[in-house]
Amino acid sequence: MKLLILGQGNVGTHLYTAFTAKHVDCTLHSSREGLDNLPAADCILYAVRDDALEQVAAQVHTDRRVLHLHTSGTMPLTVFGDDKPHAGVFYPLQSFSKNRPIEDYSSIPVFFEARGIDDVSAIYSLALMITSHVYEVSQQDREQLHLCGVLVNNFPNLMFRIAEDIARRIHVPFSTLLPLIDETAAKVHQLSPCEAQTGPAKRGDQNVMNRHLQLLQDPQIQELYRLCSTLIQKLPS
Amino acid sequence: MKLLILGQGNVGTHLYTAFTAKHVDCTLHSSREGLDNLPAADCILYAVRDDALEQVAAQVHTDRRVLHLHTSGTMPLTVFGDDKPHAGVFYPLQSFSKNRPIEDYSSIPVFFEARGIDDVSAIYSLALMITSHVYEVSQQDREQLHLCGVLVNNFPNLMFRIAEDIARRIHVPFSTLLPLIDETAAKVHQLSPCEAQTGPAKRGDQNVMNRHLQLLQDPQIQELYRLCSTLIQKLPS
Repeated sequence: MKLLILGQGNVGTHLYTAFTAKHVDCTLHSSREGLDNLPAADCILYAVRDDALEQVAAQVHTDRRVLHLHTSGTMPLTVFGDDKPHAGVFYPLQSFSKNRPIEDYSSIPVFFEARGIDDVSAIYSLALMITSHVYEVSQQDREQLHLCGVLVNNFPNLMFRIAEDIARRIHVPFSTLLPLIDETAAKVHQLSPCEAQTGPAKRGDQNVMNRHLQLLQDPQIQELYRLCSTLIQKLPS
Repeated sequence: MKLLILGQGNVGTHLYTAFTAKHVDCTLHSSREGLDNLPAADCILYAVRDDALEQVAAQVHTDRRVLHLHTSGTMPLTVFGDDKPHAGVFYPLQSFSKNRPIEDYSSIPVFFEARGIDDVSAIYSLALMITSHVYEVSQQDREQLHLCGVLVNNFPNLMFRIAEDIARRIHVPFSTLLPLIDETAAKVHQLSPCEAQTGPAKRGDQNVMNRHLQLLQDPQIQELYRLCSTLIQKLPS
């Protein structure tokens, strides 16, 4: 199996690292140039921005037997036209950063979708080269998983930014918060997020919540604090 | 130094484990009974609920030389009356759970406050028995740190609960989200939270954000999504 990865951004670079580490014959190619003269491959993985995907795919002309897979959490499989009967989605749920190596790709889940049932085993085998967590999901469920990614990565990171700003103002290094951040992640390996919930909102300690609202000066961050506290109390436990 | 820890909840139990591991002569005692007949100690650590603290402290009568320290992130030092001239705060910033051992206490920061300057070195020495991260902070700054704790622990955990609920509905195990949760925490050891921010809100991808809002059905969770997205875009980068 010759694999061609299109796109040299975070996702493309990391997938290239993961596959070559498993001795897959893999080439990493820019998605911005030379699309009419691509190296031969059995499978092309599109690791390009959502808004560029359809246009890049339209410029790629291959033998009809080639398998075309995009890596987006949100774009449908139909971005690949009828000239690509073997098509699918290969969505690794992880946050890739260029300057941060991933230590263990084998724990990263890959969610896939296939245009035809005859492509399922090919995509499955490809994913199993780098991870042992492979799931076939529909477009709708993949979108839900992408939403989960936003919830467990983007939004907690926003909370870290707000806390970093507070720590900076009182001249305490952000690094003092890291053990708590690590424990927050480690806890839900052992307890359900529901069991792991603690804090003034969980306890219903209105005095502390009022004091925290006083300390926060930005009205939108106050509103965020109120909303999170309300939801912590409202969600079924 | 003989240490007496009052309160057998999460904080008391963990501090007891941490101090005894460092061979400190330490006793763990209930805060609910026998307060008039406590074992002799040089220092009493109050690991009791905020709303019980003042009442428990008032029932503890010791030699005036004994050092009294509470462990609350929010309560003032003045919960200790004039009969306790040596008093202070010993606030470890960590989320302790009864059934989860802490692997490394030495990375946990302890923020302290002392009633008198002559108690600073005693409290400092005590904290250094279990950790190398010890900071003297004012009541106001300690409250800010407690707020940071809510931001980096309680609120991310709320996001995990919402994501767990979505994953359950689409029959994907919550464990598939753990590598991303781990990476979210690991990233900010290396990048600032600001640099680590990614996602549709950061990219300004309104299509994806609208789709996610459709997928979320609870109006308050939709509002949370909107507010987080707005703040991700608004906060200085």
